[in-house]
Amino acid sequence: MEIQELLPIGAAIASFAVAAGFAAWVSKQNPGTKEMMEISEAVRQGAAAFLKREMKIIIPIAIGLSVIIGFFFQFSNGIAFAVGAALSAIAGLISLKITVKAAVRAANLSGSGLGKTFALAFRGGATVGLAVPAMALLAITLLYLVFPDPITIAGVGIGASLIALFIRIGGGIYTKAADMAADLVGKVEANIPEDDPRNPATIADNVGDNVGDAAGMGSDVYESYIITMLASLLIAALIAAPENFLYPILIGASGIIASIIGAATVGSRNITDVMKPLNRAFYISATIAIVLNFVFTYFYLGQTTIAYSLFGATVIGVILVPVIQKITDHYTNIKYKPVKEIADSAKWGYASLTLMGIIKGMQSTGPFMIALVVAIIISFAISSAAAPDPSQALLYGIFGTSLTAMAMLSLAGIVLSIDAFGPIADNAGGIVEMTGMGEENRKVTDQIDAVGNTTKAITKGFAIASAGLAALAMIQAFQFEAAEVFHQVFDYSLSNPSVVIGLLVGGVIPFIITGQLINGVSRAASILVDEVRRQFKSDPEILTGKSKPDYAKCVDIATVASIKELWKTAIIPIIAPIVLGVILGPTAVAGLLMGAVVSGIFLAFHLANTGGAWDNAKKLIEMKGKKGSEEHKVAVVGDIIGDPYKDTAGPALNTVIKLLNTVAIVFVSAFVSIIVL
Amino acid sequence: MEIQELLPIGAAIASFAVAAGFAAWVSKQNPGTKEMMEISEAVRQGAAAFLKREMKIIIPIAIGLSVIIGFFFQFSNGIAFAVGAALSAIAGLISLKITVKAAVRAANLSGSGLGKTFALAFRGGATVGLAVPAMALLAITLLYLVFPDPITIAGVGIGASLIALFIRIGGGIYTKAADMAADLVGKVEANIPEDDPRNPATIADNVGDNVGDAAGMGSDVYESYIITMLASLLIAALIAAPENFLYPILIGASGIIASIIGAATVGSRNITDVMKPLNRAFYISATIAIVLNFVFTYFYLGQTTIAYSLFGATVIGVILVPVIQKITDHYTNIKYKPVKEIADSAKWGYASLTLMGIIKGMQSTGPFMIALVVAIIISFAISSAAAPDPSQALLYGIFGTSLTAMAMLSLAGIVLSIDAFGPIADNAGGIVEMTGMGEENRKVTDQIDAVGNTTKAITKGFAIASAGLAALAMIQAFQFEAAEVFHQVFDYSLSNPSVVIGLLVGGVIPFIITGQLINGVSRAASILVDEVRRQFKSDPEILTGKSKPDYAKCVDIATVASIKELWKTAIIPIIAPIVLGVILGPTAVAGLLMGAVVSGIFLAFHLANTGGAWDNAKKLIEMKGKKGSEEHKVAVVGDIIGDPYKDTAGPALNTVIKLLNTVAIVFVSAFVSIIVL
Repeated sequence: MEIQELLPIGAAIASFAVAAGFAAWVSKQNPGTKEMMEISEAVRQGAAAFLKREMKIIIPIAIGLSVIIGFFFQFSNGIAFAVGAALSAIAGLISLKITVKAAVRAANLSGSGLGKTFALAFRGGATVGLAVPAMALLAITLLYLVFPDPITIAGVGIGASLIALFIRIGGGIYTKAADMAADLVGKVEANIPEDDPRNPATIADNVGDNVGDAAGMGSDVYESYIITMLASLLIAALIAAPENFLYPILIGASGIIASIIGAATVGSRNITDVMKPLNRAFYISATIAIVLNFVFTYFYLGQTTIAYSLFGATVIGVILVPVIQKITDHYTNIKYKPVKEIADSAKWGYASLTLMGIIKGMQSTGPFMIALVVAIIISFAISSAAAPDPSQALLYGIFGTSLTAMAMLSLAGIVLSIDAFGPIADNAGGIVEMTGMGEENRKVTDQIDAVGNTTKAITKGFAIASAGLAALAMIQAFQFEAAEVFHQVFDYSLSNPSVVIGLLVGGVIPFIITGQLINGVSRAASILVDEVRRQFKSDPEILTGKSKPDYAKCVDIATVASIKELWKTAIIPIIAPIVLGVILGPTAVAGLLMGAVVSGIFLAFHLANTGGAWDNAKKLIEMKGKKGSEEHKVAVVGDIIGDPYKDTAGPALNTVIKLLNTVAIVFVSAFVSIIVL
Repeated sequence: MEIQELLPIGAAIASFAVAAGFAAWVSKQNPGTKEMMEISEAVRQGAAAFLKREMKIIIPIAIGLSVIIGFFFQFSNGIAFAVGAALSAIAGLISLKITVKAAVRAANLSGSGLGKTFALAFRGGATVGLAVPAMALLAITLLYLVFPDPITIAGVGIGASLIALFIRIGGGIYTKAADMAADLVGKVEANIPEDDPRNPATIADNVGDNVGDAAGMGSDVYESYIITMLASLLIAALIAAPENFLYPILIGASGIIASIIGAATVGSRNITDVMKPLNRAFYISATIAIVLNFVFTYFYLGQTTIAYSLFGATVIGVILVPVIQKITDHYTNIKYKPVKEIADSAKWGYASLTLMGIIKGMQSTGPFMIALVVAIIISFAISSAAAPDPSQALLYGIFGTSLTAMAMLSLAGIVLSIDAFGPIADNAGGIVEMTGMGEENRKVTDQIDAVGNTTKAITKGFAIASAGLAALAMIQAFQFEAAEVFHQVFDYSLSNPSVVIGLLVGGVIPFIITGQLINGVSRAASILVDEVRRQFKSDPEILTGKSKPDYAKCVDIATVASIKELWKTAIIPIIAPIVLGVILGPTAVAGLLMGAVVSGIFLAFHLANTGGAWDNAKKLIEMKGKKGSEEHKVAVVGDIIGDPYKDTAGPALNTVIKLLNTVAIVFVSAFVSIIVL
């Protein structure tokens, strides 16, 4: 093996090693009292029950699909599919395990101050953050070394999507159904505080934070990573210059090394503002990534105009991360005007607050679009201009934009680390509350949780942008793929009615999915609400604290209900491209993929930011000491409306957009065009 | 002149004659007591003040644009622009005048029963309904006879769009700002009923119903009509068969004749269910339209396969109208499950009702998309298959789909008639309330108003579908146009980065516009709220009914505020295609136009149906006798949130989607592509 092949493998292994070190360190910390461990164990069991039930469904499907793909669509694709799915599932399991472990330990440490508690939560989060992209990089690199033609390993994408579908969408329904049910009966009807141990749905709520927020974001980014890498490799393979082949993988390796270093800079000393060390860690990683990208480019691609241009495209990708973060931050952080205006509108009542949240979320899509478009224009322009001959300008341009996406995702390690401590702090806060550890401890976990909410909102922006860029790269790869499979030049132009129909079909999918998922959440929540009410009614001692509620029953009900709802939605992105492809052929499918991106990323961005802003408007009102006021009541409603916006529908759209692409590219040979328009 | 040229002119004149007859009949009815006439006069003055202020801004712009277009983009285009704008403005003026006149007379008649009151409201509405499309048909036919090349009269579209922009968007902001302000201070704070004469904003609210609902829908459909006709003619001109040229105009004439007959069937006798005669009138018109289309096809195009295929495409268009109506009806009528479920969710509180409304509106986009796509597929397939030679298959296919759009819009006369009586009944109810005419009278106007709400929701579906089809036809015309202007074959395929960027820019525009407009409504409303509060405070006798509030002040404030907010939004669809076109060329612009349709029509449909469903969920709860209950309070909030959804943002998106197209096609020669990607 040559150095450029060893490098990514080495980087992935290093990342695993650091993650394992963090995990070991976290495990060594004191898990606290027996009562705390009991709660933690209940959450762990709940999360395990959810995953186990999902796995029972996923594993037979995965094996079946693996065999079908391996048999009908190349042997290597079947293996790739299995590898992609298995690693994603393992990443999900690791995330859940470490998050639960870290949460109870952070709760226990919360008495010894902000710095130490934060350091623990961060290391727990960084375990996930570093392991997930390393897993993706390793999967792609090894598969690619064994099967050097990327189209023969495209199945890895569908494997990643399948798992993401279950964890991101299933988890998204679960977490918000549990949250809404716990809030509706607990806070509103029984008038007990959040995370109160008397609430039967409280463990389910905490399980939800783990399966939805921690594991969900991980599987989402893993999927983006795999798909972007795949698209980049597919396009690289079309360029008759073999030295380009490994370049996207090297960019991935660079980001992982940069992430390890960045994560290592976060210590526990003298912390007053949790955001500062996180920001510093990110910028250190970003700088190192740019430097490493340059070094790798210099030595691997040489000192040519093409090399410098492609390097330029990766720089755009790295810069895009903080730009998108700033935009999301502006619209969701209590420090800025949008959230302040929303909080302000609470005094006008429910309608005003609701509309104001929707206004701000809708408006946030403008700068987001500009950031994406400028990045695409620059990276395409410099890469296509550097093409060795004009006939390859388009290919090089597309390759450049795929590298921008790849460079953006290469920072997933540090971005996920900065995100993943949030659910840990959130859960730690829950344990503090449930065990009655006192105001001081809760204050510490609350402080970390508040920053976690901000980074969570910011990471959503990153996830949406990366999903969008991954999908755009994949759509280009799909077109080249279809040409090869059918030995035919298709007309993907806007005057082709099949393309127009595809665009319309694709454009509507995000709207339908959003409707379906929010519906799923409220249906699942209402089942859970019935159960909580039943428990309160059948045993009045629960509310007095004398007898324990049946947590496990709620966990079980939420699990069954969310998986049931998941299917109703998941079937759409799987069936739609296949049906349309068989009837109207690849041109309609390409239109569909594009239409879903065009409406999907903006709808997702709106949903994520509106939801995040409502959440923080509520927090802002609380910080002003108005908890319990009429305004606060209004803001709580905004927060409840926003929950399925930001934590179910918004994130699910990312997965849907990508899933459409992986389904399309794997099943392309089935798109026989029954009707030719 | 030949028979086929005389026919459309004759049809238009006949339509005017019937409209004039209705108007004269309405004018002859008794306008009621002095008090009623005073209120009516106040509304008339308010509406006139609004229009006058708008005209003060529009006329200089229109003259300037007319000169610029005439000078730089052909003389005939300048004239066409002026004609398009002037006729649209006249149509708006007529609508306002007759609506105000009919309202007070309907109020006066409301004592003599449902049948007579309804007949009066309907004839008032039919005046608008028959005049508007006749105006559009006449404009296009005359221009076309003078300047037989459709590209030289494309300016007529931009004229129509300019006026629609002011009336539809400006009126949309006005109506909802006045409505929200009147509700917020009146119903919620001062606890006085709707339309109470003590409320200073009540006249502004009634003016808003006229400028927003009556004139707004008219200008929207007028614009769709003009643009679809234009697109159809542009495409017809590309087909080297001159006998096709007048065909779209004949389809328009057929629909107008059918509408006259349909409208004439609506009488006043023995009415218990208002919906029945309306439905009958529509189906009579639709049947006649199909028969006339066949006759015109048979005699004008001859008995060829092409002729029958194009006739088939028009049949699809006619059928599409009731299909879209049924879909909208299902999601917004109290009779069906969606509204029932929303009303049901009110017992769970604000968050549930809000989410349930959003769920249903989002889900409604699915069947809407299917209806559109199936219509496009069939009409394209049959028309392209009939092309005389394969090289023209694409052109014939596109021509067929443009005829489907034209046939759909040809029924605008009857569709608008069925819609336009709603605001009349609404206003009549207001007058009844303000003059204290008693329960019985109010019941009559309420009954008509309720049906008006249903037909209003249904007509919105029609307007969105027609805007979408008009835009799709226009985008095709734009591509042909650009090729001719630049003598160059452009690449509009999905692999062209300019197209992708255009799609992203276009896709985001509806989201931004929605955010901006709802923001505009709440800003304008808050200014008005301040004024209402000021009046209540400075003169406490207003609330006791002893002194009269200053209605005119509120009307004036609403006018100024809504025009100010209009500009902030209107500038986007005017500037965006020009800037993008100059920088990235026609390919990016085509992408933009398509992107706006792809996300815009579904967002608009969601907004319209969610808003309509909330409105009716409130009505359903009231009908169950739960007025004043906790559930009703919740539903009132839903209705307030839905107001800018369904009456400002939703309808405005129609205009924006079309405006983008007219701007693009008129300024195409300026799209010089500074950057070539």
